[in-house]
Amino acid sequence: MPDRAAGHAVIVEGAEAPGRFVLVCEHASNHFPARWGDLGLDAAARAAHIAWDPGALGLAQGLAAHLDAVLVRATTSRVIYDLNRPPHAPGAMPVRSEIYDIPGNHALPATERRARTEALYLPFHAALDAQIARRLAQGIAPVLVTVHSFTPVFNGVARAVELGVIHDADPRYAKAIAAEARAQTGLNVQINAPYSAADGVTHTLARHATPIGLPHVMLELRNDLIATPAAQQAMATQLAPLLRAALTRTEETP
Amino acid sequence: MPDRAAGHAVIVEGAEAPGRFVLVCEHASNHFPARWGDLGLDAAARAAHIAWDPGALGLAQGLAAHLDAVLVRATTSRVIYDLNRPPHAPGAMPVRSEIYDIPGNHALPATERRARTEALYLPFHAALDAQIARRLAQGIAPVLVTVHSFTPVFNGVARAVELGVIHDADPRYAKAIAAEARAQTGLNVQINAPYSAADGVTHTLARHATPIGLPHVMLELRNDLIATPAAQQAMATQLAPLLRAALTRTEETP
Repeated sequence: MPDRAAGHAVIVEGAEAPGRFVLVCEHASNHFPARWGDLGLDAAARAAHIAWDPGALGLAQGLAAHLDAVLVRATTSRVIYDLNRPPHAPGAMPVRSEIYDIPGNHALPATERRARTEALYLPFHAALDAQIARRLAQGIAPVLVTVHSFTPVFNGVARAVELGVIHDADPRYAKAIAAEARAQTGLNVQINAPYSAADGVTHTLARHATPIGLPHVMLELRNDLIATPAAQQAMATQLAPLLRAALTRTEETP
Repeated sequence: MPDRAAGHAVIVEGAEAPGRFVLVCEHASNHFPARWGDLGLDAAARAAHIAWDPGALGLAQGLAAHLDAVLVRATTSRVIYDLNRPPHAPGAMPVRSEIYDIPGNHALPATERRARTEALYLPFHAALDAQIARRLAQGIAPVLVTVHSFTPVFNGVARAVELGVIHDADPRYAKAIAAEARAQTGLNVQINAPYSAADGVTHTLARHATPIGLPHVMLELRNDLIATPAAQQAMATQLAPLLRAALTRTEETP
């Protein structure tokens, strides 16, 4: 059973999993708890990519199974709090996302920003801290992989990239994954696309991997490639060995 | 009343303090809780600088009063767990410190390293995370200041430095403090002395300040200058205005 810690703000699957990989899915859910309501979004907006990363959770769970990994995942829509942003970032509680206005986030009082931060951001990152720290204490060297998806068309422009491989300060593991993925798959693979650390999208990596020098990557899959459970599992089966091979390559290179 | 959260692993004084400064004292205490015993150290070793930073807590409390700041402080000796080190660092649970052997830390099993990490490291840093995140959510820009002391004689060598000003990735605030302190005091002020980030002593700064770009500094006072409560208060009265002036200088410089 997953551990629904801290009032359901986060779920940890496989807390005692023996592998080195620590998987994270900050945008796993488009659930809108009653406490916050629907923020004025209609059903179509709540199902769209602005509310979550469609397909990312199934992919992350598939990767976790292949890699004997723990998975730390969100339970609540990113438009209530985007767990991959610090509390002062405009994108943490966005008033607008792509073509969608988010009425329930307009003119948020400081008390409400603080309440969401305490209810969602802090427990999520504390749970992730705990998973990493436990492994470090026990002599296991963690590898941090965050799993995301992106929309094929953004602001009316089609995106050619299919697998984006994004890094924070240390590019080595991301570059090794890109090299493996280009050699082993037919995917259009790009580093730091469709966005990069300069866009403020690597907060989880910057908080948890960079300060202690962990190998890290943010995987971004175009969501049309992982639209069904079968496609998510197939992608996990394809990517898991690449993640292992790239780690070996990274750690063998002086 | 201070908030003795999480089984007394950390004390937060002034959680709702209105100022921008967030003060931290990782080595505030030479308390050895019964759970861990004395680790085989005699009374002299438990009172020495290897067990804590003498004078640092009084200085930090004085600074907190002057700066309307919150203070996050440890309750347990650094030789049980050094809260300024990640769980995989040898110094987190050191087997030796300067001239002292620490018998109770020899050949620690992974289960014990994990237990100390979960009991001491995780609650301390979660409490600090919470203090920073709350302020960010409410539109207050935090400034992280960790307060330490060092011994006048180390491995038989006398140290001339009296105030060490140490930084993690961004040197600006530390350099401004050093400039103010040289102009306003008679102290021997040195940047990144008696040690620096390269020695692994900036973990708290690297975890909490650098990932989100907070102004930060680690203050190191030679402990003979803050040996009494009166000396600690006098030093706080001298340093607090410097910390404010240096912040203004840092933020006014493009």
